[in-house]
Order: sequence, then structure tokens, then C-alpha cells
Amino acid sequence: MYDELIAPPRVLLGPGPSEANARVLKAMTTPMLGYLDTEFVHIMDDTVALLRRVFGTQNRLTLPVSGTGTAGMEAALANIIEPGDAVVVGINGYFGERIAEIARRCGGTVTTLHADWGTPLPAEKMAEAIAKTAPKLVALVHAETSTGILQPLEDIIQIAHEHDALFLADCVTSLGGQPVDLDARGIDIAYSCTQKCLAAPPGLSPISFSERAVAAIRHRKTPIQSFYLDMTLLENYWHGSARRYHHTVSMSLIYALREALRVVLEEGTYARYKRHENNARALLAGAKAIGLEPAAAEGYRAPMLTTLRIPEGIDDATIRKRLIEDYGIEIGAGLGIFAGKAWRIGLMGESSNERNVMLVLTALEKLLIAFGHAVEPGSAVHAAAQVYADR
Amino acid sequence: MYDELIAPPRVLLGPGPSEANARVLKAMTTPMLGYLDTEFVHIMDDTVALLRRVFGTQNRLTLPVSGTGTAGMEAALANIIEPGDAVVVGINGYFGERIAEIARRCGGTVTTLHADWGTPLPAEKMAEAIAKTAPKLVALVHAETSTGILQPLEDIIQIAHEHDALFLADCVTSLGGQPVDLDARGIDIAYSCTQKCLAAPPGLSPISFSERAVAAIRHRKTPIQSFYLDMTLLENYWHGSARRYHHTVSMSLIYALREALRVVLEEGTYARYKRHENNARALLAGAKAIGLEPAAAEGYRAPMLTTLRIPEGIDDATIRKRLIEDYGIEIGAGLGIFAGKAWRIGLMGESSNERNVMLVLTALEKLLIAFGHAVEPGSAVHAAAQVYADR
Repeated sequence: MYDELIAPPRVLLGPGPSEANARVLKAMTTPMLGYLDTEFVHIMDDTVALLRRVFGTQNRLTLPVSGTGTAGMEAALANIIEPGDAVVVGINGYFGERIAEIARRCGGTVTTLHADWGTPLPAEKMAEAIAKTAPKLVALVHAETSTGILQPLEDIIQIAHEHDALFLADCVTSLGGQPVDLDARGIDIAYSCTQKCLAAPPGLSPISFSERAVAAIRHRKTPIQSFYLDMTLLENYWHGSARRYHHTVSMSLIYALREALRVVLEEGTYARYKRHENNARALLAGAKAIGLEPAAAEGYRAPMLTTLRIPEGIDDATIRKRLIEDYGIEIGAGLGIFAGKAWRIGLMGESSNERNVMLVLTALEKLLIAFGHAVEPGSAVHAAAQVYADR
Repeated sequence: MYDELIAPPRVLLGPGPSEANARVLKAMTTPMLGYLDTEFVHIMDDTVALLRRVFGTQNRLTLPVSGTGTAGMEAALANIIEPGDAVVVGINGYFGERIAEIARRCGGTVTTLHADWGTPLPAEKMAEAIAKTAPKLVALVHAETSTGILQPLEDIIQIAHEHDALFLADCVTSLGGQPVDLDARGIDIAYSCTQKCLAAPPGLSPISFSERAVAAIRHRKTPIQSFYLDMTLLENYWHGSARRYHHTVSMSLIYALREALRVVLEEGTYARYKRHENNARALLAGAKAIGLEPAAAEGYRAPMLTTLRIPEGIDDATIRKRLIEDYGIEIGAGLGIFAGKAWRIGLMGESSNERNVMLVLTALEKLLIAFGHAVEPGSAVHAAAQVYADR
């Protein structure tokens, strides 16, 4: 009545999911274990220990939330914000907007600060808003998946802390592809996902709270509106000596995450960050050679996600359709104000490699030529190859 | 630094997860697809169509929420309840308590009605509370995982509808193991999980809303406090013609659910319900033969979860530890007021078979004898075998 599940082969170069590591997929065939089985508890403990290393933190309250990155965002905000709390949110893309939206649904009094899409948030503007509103929480996105901006954090963190505010960074796109270094930087709350630079399937959101953030949760006067995402209850299950039942976590996704984190640490985080940077550099050189200009400001580009402006006279949807149909390549459409105006090319986790860079450049070049753009055949790959040669 | 993932062999006879079907585990090795890939959208549509059949509904707003059963519970309540709304919750176990707790966190004015653990909720008592408070929502648990009670629904649904209330049934433990029949019964809101009678790994919560329930969502005056679980936004992604992005769903878990539902329908829902009933009958006959008495009232026992009173002089934890260590068998500890007083033996999905019935009876009998109980060797299996012979 419904046929066997068959997925077409795809080269995943969008904003995520990226290609899942083969070892990770294999780990998911491991049979179920009870959620309180001693052996499963060891696997949970391993996963947390590995997560702390990739997050760069000693935070006790570190665990994967049973939901996707947006669940992590909601967990972070709902546990910290009480009705009426002042919150400052920096917005320079789609996911900054989302933080503000969720903070409002948590009852926060939200001050938003905007920078143009494709530019970073200036620390001075953030400082003004922080000084004026004395917020409990300052929040922004580390790597904006909608624009490809990698936001400098240090100055804003310092300002937030000087004003006694907690600092939250959305690390959904950065974790595993660029350093997040929670403890060294003083990030109080961070969350991520599994399907981008960690190269696992989606479904979990690694999250971490500093001791200061935990104290804010402990001193709440009102209950957290979400029971499912209540970090105190989750902490009792993940870290309490009694391992108090809260909900049945997804063994398969935890097996996957544990294996994905092992792969990350076997490669080495530094080598992995470098790999993301090198491939992004080659991609961008090739793209520029065929007239595709970056939409993110120079010096602030996230290597795992490159946004490219769609040239005049080229139809967004047509090109993306041809990429899928002729090459099996998925790239991302523009989101928000970038819809129809920019492409998002993800080189994340396993998907970040020279083969994919050369493939997507070849395909884009051919299609631009097919649609009448004056491009020298081979120029994209030529420019990219030079970057790899110089490395 | 961390060894390869290895899970010990287990026979999963607790409250869930049950054994995942091998075809389901295999389906999870399928590579990722983009969340808007046409081919993935087909897989989503298949999954919804299959889910509707197992739920017994034509409800358009049917989909798997990206979280476990408790996320489904929260989605159901948070979308329907606005601050100040009257809610009647029937409680005869742990998960009824949880419904009331979440309903309160959603701002509901909650009236709770209690029946003893191990007994069903009487319709008359529910009727009184419904008449008195004129609630927007009446909620209870179909199969209480903490007590093994299968709650009769028809009378209470009729009363709720006569008073213009929506009716919610928690089908976490029943779906796939007993008929839920949403449309035939008039259940307005139902949610479930994947790791019990559907025999998939945990991580998703199938949910369904009737047209009346959808109208209640449409007519809300306040925003839903959860963005992650906002059904209107989820509907736009799952069912809207524009497939508007909300969050990146877990391809792997959706592959798993689709395959699990195929397996359910290949067996046939009626045959599957019968299988659950037959194995539960054999288990109970065997248990009684060695002095293990059911904790749930006769005539109201959920076949997928049998609660057995722990005999005087037998230590709960010792027996469960020996079952795991000597036989690899997991059974469930008592929850809430049944902690230390009852065991919960799940025969769910793949785990519901004659082999497991005979194995757990053999093991329990041996352990009871080892701890000094006067039991005739072989009596448990003998009694169970008679049930299978009579079938």
C-alpha cells in the first residue's frame, strides 16, 4: 500500500541537514535500551562528556534537549525569562527574529537591535541598549544561518557582564564548525543542533548553562511555562544521582550524537574548523570567478554557510531545480529578505569537502552559462583549485 | 578516548521503549534529505496518511510532533488552553497528574478528578465536574502507563460533547496496541509516542486535532506560549501548499515512523490488537499461577501493560536487577504510589510475543523460588501455555 522507503541520492549543500556521517547512521541501528538501564546511563554520561569538550565548557548543566535547534532556543529562553524580564536581542537575520519572537512568548520585555542582513551587530549599539534597559539577558546568533554572518562575541559579552546580564549565543550553525568556547568567552547559555556541523541527523539540541545561568533558573519566582523543556527536571534525569524519570529520551538519536561527537574529536576540533575555513575559501574564490558575489560582509563570514547574491536575470527557483534534477545537489534558498535574492551554500560537517566544492562550482558555472551569462568555462574550478594549491 | 558504541542485548518488557522493529532500524540508515526536498515531502505525506489510518481519523491536522510523548502532551494542551480556561482532568495514575501539571503551566484553571490507581475513572464523577465547571477541555489518559488501566471513553466523551467541551485522550501507550478510533469515538485531540506499540525508537509524538479542536485554536485570543509546538506553524509546514519552514524535522525519525506504520498496517490493526490481548492474557494467567496478582481492576486492563503486585517479602529492586543481570530482561519499576509495590510488564509492539511471555514467566518463577516462595516449578509456563492452546 505504501512502497518501501527509498531516498534519492543527494549532495546536501543547503543550510542543513548536511550529510550524516556513515558511522553515525550505523550507530542508529543499535537496539533500544531502557531509559534507566545502567548501560544506557553510561552512554548518556559519555555523550555529555563529549558534548562539553566540543562546547568548550565545564558546565554541569550540559545535555541534549529532545528536540531540534528551535526546541533548544525555546528551552534556553523559557528557563531564563520570567514575565516582565528585560531582554535585549540583537537581530541581523531570520534567527535573531525568532529569538525575539520566542522571548516575547515567554513574557519577556524585549528590546530589539537591528543590523542590516549580511552585516554583524555593532557592539556599541548593543552597549547602548544594554545600558538603557539593564536586561536580565542579552541574546544573539553566533552564526546566522540566514545570512552567513559569524558574529564577533567578545566585546558584547563583556558589556553584558559589566551590566550583570546573562549572555546567550545561538550556536545552531557554529558548533562543530567554528570554535564556540563557552567558558573561555564567558557565554552563559548556548544551544545548537545535530544536523549541521556535527554531521548527525536532526532531532536533538545540545544545550549548556553556566553556573550564573543555573542560579537564575534556581531563583525564578514563577514556574517555567514548558514542562517538556524544564531544565531542572531534565537535570534531575541527566545528572541527578536518582536519575529521576522525566520523559523517554530517544536512544537512537543519543547513539547518533555520541558517535558524531567521537568523529569530531577524532578529527580534532582545530583541524575541523580549519577544514571548514579552507573549503569556504575555495568555494568563495570559485563563486567570485563566475560573478557570484558574497552577501555577507568581508571579515565576518561564517565558513559553514556562504550566501551568494543571485545575479540579475537569473531565476532563483529555476537554478535550484536544475541543480537538484541534473546534479542531485541541494543548495539553500534565501530566507526572509534574502528570499529570491541570495543562495545559501552550506559546507557543513561531512559535506564540507573539496569534492563538493568542485561539484557545486561546476554545476553553477554550467547553469549560468546555459542561462546566457558570459562566464569563461572552467573559471570557477580553476579559481578554487588555486586556493587549495596555496593552502 | 571513548569506545565504540556497544549496547548489551536486552529483552525490553518495561513501559517502553519496546524492541524496535528491525525494518525500522534499517530505515534509519537512509541518508538525509532536505526538509523541503520534493521527495522528502512525499515521505512526510505518506507518514501522515499512514498515521491517520492507525489513529482512525480523517483529521487534516495530523502529524508527528518533533519530540517525545510528553512534547505531544504539551502541544495538545498549550494549543488549546488559554489563560483562565476551565479544564477538567481525570487522574488515576502518574500521567493524568502530568496532564494537570502541564495544563496549569498553560494557565488553565484546572479541576482534577481522582480515582484510585488501578481503577478506571467513573463517568458519573466526571459528569459532575463537567456540569459544574463547563470546561473548554476534558482530558484523561486512555491507557495509563503507570497502572495498566485501559479507560472506557464513550460515556465521558458524550458528556463532554453535551457540555460543549473538547475531549482529549492521551494515547501514548494505546496507539498501535488497542483501537483508538478517533473519529468513531469523537476524540477531539489525541497524541501518542513511537516507542511503545508502534515499535519504533522514541523521539516523535504523533498528534491529531479534530475540526472542532482546530476551530478552538483558530479562535484563540492569546498567542500560544510555545513557538516550537505551535500547531498553526507546524500545519503550515506539514500541510500548507507553501510548506513554510518552521524547524528542521528529524528525517531519520520520520523514516522510522513511516516504516513502523507500514509494518502495523501489513500485520493489520485488528490482528495486532488481538495479538496484544492474547499475549497479555497468557502473561496474566502465568503470573497468577505463581502468586503475582494484577494491580489493575478486572475488565479494565490494558493488554500492552500489565501491573503485578510485588508479593510480601520480595524486594523490588533485587528482582529487577537479577532479571537484567541473569536474563537480560527489563521490566518496569512501579511509578508514583506503585513504586516498590508493583512491577510493570510491557508487552508492546514487537515485544508482545509468546517467546517473551514464556521467558519472563520462567525467569520470575525461578527468582520467586530462589527467594523462598512456595511455587511449583513450571506452573507459570504451564498456565500460560494453556491460554495459548485455548486460543
